[in-house]
Amino acid sequence: MLLKASSQSLTDQLAERFGERIRNRLLAPGARLPSVRQCAGQQGVSPSTVVAAYDQLLAQGLVEARKNRGFFVREAAPQEGAAEPPRAPAVRRPGPVNATSLIRGMFHRASNKPQPGMGVLPTEWLESTFLPAAVRKVTGTTMLHAFSLQYGEPLGDGGLRRALSNKLAGLHVPAPPEHIITTVGATHALDIVSRTLLRPGDPVMVEEPGWAVEFARLSALGMRLLPVPRRADGPDLQVMARYCEVHKPKLYVSVSVLHNPTSYCLSPGSAHRVLQLANQHGFHIVEDDTYSHIAPAHATRLAALDGLQRTIYVGGFAKILAPNWRIGFIAAPQALVEPLLDTKLLTTLTTPALLEKALAVCIEQGQLRRHSERIRTRLDLARSRSVKLALHAGCRFVAEPAGLFGWVDTGVDTDALSQRMLDEGYLLAPGALFHAERKPGTLMRINFATTQDAAFWKKYGELAKKI
Amino acid sequence: MLLKASSQSLTDQLAERFGERIRNRLLAPGARLPSVRQCAGQQGVSPSTVVAAYDQLLAQGLVEARKNRGFFVREAAPQEGAAEPPRAPAVRRPGPVNATSLIRGMFHRASNKPQPGMGVLPTEWLESTFLPAAVRKVTGTTMLHAFSLQYGEPLGDGGLRRALSNKLAGLHVPAPPEHIITTVGATHALDIVSRTLLRPGDPVMVEEPGWAVEFARLSALGMRLLPVPRRADGPDLQVMARYCEVHKPKLYVSVSVLHNPTSYCLSPGSAHRVLQLANQHGFHIVEDDTYSHIAPAHATRLAALDGLQRTIYVGGFAKILAPNWRIGFIAAPQALVEPLLDTKLLTTLTTPALLEKALAVCIEQGQLRRHSERIRTRLDLARSRSVKLALHAGCRFVAEPAGLFGWVDTGVDTDALSQRMLDEGYLLAPGALFHAERKPGTLMRINFATTQDAAFWKKYGELAKKI
Repeated sequence: MLLKASSQSLTDQLAERFGERIRNRLLAPGARLPSVRQCAGQQGVSPSTVVAAYDQLLAQGLVEARKNRGFFVREAAPQEGAAEPPRAPAVRRPGPVNATSLIRGMFHRASNKPQPGMGVLPTEWLESTFLPAAVRKVTGTTMLHAFSLQYGEPLGDGGLRRALSNKLAGLHVPAPPEHIITTVGATHALDIVSRTLLRPGDPVMVEEPGWAVEFARLSALGMRLLPVPRRADGPDLQVMARYCEVHKPKLYVSVSVLHNPTSYCLSPGSAHRVLQLANQHGFHIVEDDTYSHIAPAHATRLAALDGLQRTIYVGGFAKILAPNWRIGFIAAPQALVEPLLDTKLLTTLTTPALLEKALAVCIEQGQLRRHSERIRTRLDLARSRSVKLALHAGCRFVAEPAGLFGWVDTGVDTDALSQRMLDEGYLLAPGALFHAERKPGTLMRINFATTQDAAFWKKYGELAKKI
Repeated sequence: MLLKASSQSLTDQLAERFGERIRNRLLAPGARLPSVRQCAGQQGVSPSTVVAAYDQLLAQGLVEARKNRGFFVREAAPQEGAAEPPRAPAVRRPGPVNATSLIRGMFHRASNKPQPGMGVLPTEWLESTFLPAAVRKVTGTTMLHAFSLQYGEPLGDGGLRRALSNKLAGLHVPAPPEHIITTVGATHALDIVSRTLLRPGDPVMVEEPGWAVEFARLSALGMRLLPVPRRADGPDLQVMARYCEVHKPKLYVSVSVLHNPTSYCLSPGSAHRVLQLANQHGFHIVEDDTYSHIAPAHATRLAALDGLQRTIYVGGFAKILAPNWRIGFIAAPQALVEPLLDTKLLTTLTTPALLEKALAVCIEQGQLRRHSERIRTRLDLARSRSVKLALHAGCRFVAEPAGLFGWVDTGVDTDALSQRMLDEGYLLAPGALFHAERKPGTLMRINFATTQDAAFWKKYGELAKKI
């Protein structure tokens, strides 16, 4: 809210708010600012205040005026006060910047309110006694020295790889420890897979809706994205088959279980047919199983059906244990272990063993399993509350509510709604974030753990009416 | 040594030794195995034993026979017993595999003897009381929860960035904390810089001799390497100027201080002229200052002269504190901070804060500085011993001995010598490892910390005579 009693003028407050949002990429490059009249109405200030604030943003180089069209966020916003060095070499931004930009916003806490757009569980859900105990267990002086003072195993900590191998056996994914490579989170794992299997210009099938970081990374690497519509039981197989014939894609990137943002789970029949296509057309599949810890028992994984022949399995722990620990892993077909390991070495050499060893303790002692059970129970409760509130607020669930995320139709433009909700301290995840082309629309992803709050839905109801 | 009394036959022992070396990439793909007669002589076995061992390697698919030319390591060695899935999609290896391969060998400890080819200090040199104390300080339950349970700051831990900013001020590199980005080791930092500034096909100037990981990564990303000869006072400026006119390179990658493998330090005059060229031709410079902790006081850094305008500064702690912690950083020109941060997010999202916080403690309390002083003193002593032994063994120093590495001419083919020394449990770093084209020769890099041992030089003397 803008404050009349503040020592800052309303103009300065407004300019500062937009400036911060642009720098934090919560207003993406190319986005249009509200019209002067619109903004004045929304913020309860006079049009002249808005004009003065937009002028400040112009002077700072953060926005540009386009004749008869209004104000737009500049594509490469220089920082405040940035003086370009003389004849500075042109900076080549990696691919389209929009997707990356929006992700950046996800790291800036909008306020202390629960954040419906965030992709992780609230920190208080993740607190435990076993996590610090596991860290203490592996940080005695002798042990710490033993693993810290040399580069460590290229594949990653042996104990963790054994624990992961056992865990995967429980999901019917046959991966001996020597076919597992630890990484700096699932993101790094997906990056390694793309860089090993693809060359710039290669066509890659991605799911749409899907995860913006994946789109942005593949674009930055110069790949051609082929979006496959994701349905309740799996990818649209007709579209996939057509892509295979026309473009000969090298890779299909899939979140088969609790797909982000829909929470759809792949059906066994669909899995079988995807693998048939892969065999027929000779593409690899990378299966991102980030949400496995909160997945229903007996969910179908491509890697289990396929026995890690053509499927590369990727996992991580940011959604269940500790987002900042950045531990992920690849379980790879035998023939791909060496090339993937080469790429890992070129990107980070090895990975830090301390957290890998602590994670191994949590898995081996059954603490991760029990913790996941507790989280699932808590999430089930949160989901039923959140769904009621969402329906009451006029949202329609496009996908059957499950897992961590709800995929809802709000009936209004969610890009605009996001900006207005941000004024109130709520970060949303508008549907555009999940489209390869950043197509705006009326959909949005909600996090069930952070939308149990009636206050949020009340504000949502108020503002959605005004869009 | 092959053992006659072993339960394994001599043939099996010999086949196993070569097999292991091929899998660990200590024998690079494409490398030629010794002739049957040569090998029999070297190992003290009959030619028929060697023939039988080579037959085993053939059957395992590890080597191939080329008519009238002998046995060669296969370019893409499948693992033992690997059955290719039907119609498996072709694996595209990133760029030339040789450089990557040789690096892999560096992670496999050849024996418990001191390893002259390794690029790090021996673990016992790095032991301290302050490292475990710093870890304990940041892993209390409350603190651990506070930073573990959310993704963390995209730029990296704020405390560490402040500590680094102060440290850099001491080197006259002006980098405020908000222009510093932490990474998973200096390798990740260099990867982020390349991916942000370059597109596949772009020409990049690298130093030759130089570091194989850098060559391999740039090749894997599809860049064109332009090797600039590195002289005692800096790069060959005439070659550089010519490259600038003909190829218009986008980037120059340089280890200016204690260059790897020569330990040369850039002179102020050379630094000035390199920056003039960069300004004139509009290329960026990435300055890898990995060895700064053991560098002489008053060493010249490009980033200091340039004030981080055109130079991107990269640092790390693997050479002084804890190789496995994988902490590196980028200090960037203001205009590059946002694009570099975008790339970091696409590769690992954030980085683990635990070790970053512990490192900050070590820097702030002056422990890293005092530790570095102790290491420098110890290294000076080791160097003077090692130099004497090397000269006595007939080596000639191509570069004035300094820092961690000596760059010596052995007078014999160091690729062949490396294989023979490996039989005795010593890993060498042959000169080919430091050439963009892996050109074999008589040079090799020695680590002064691990070549103070008369036993090594005795064995070296014996075997060098037989090459």
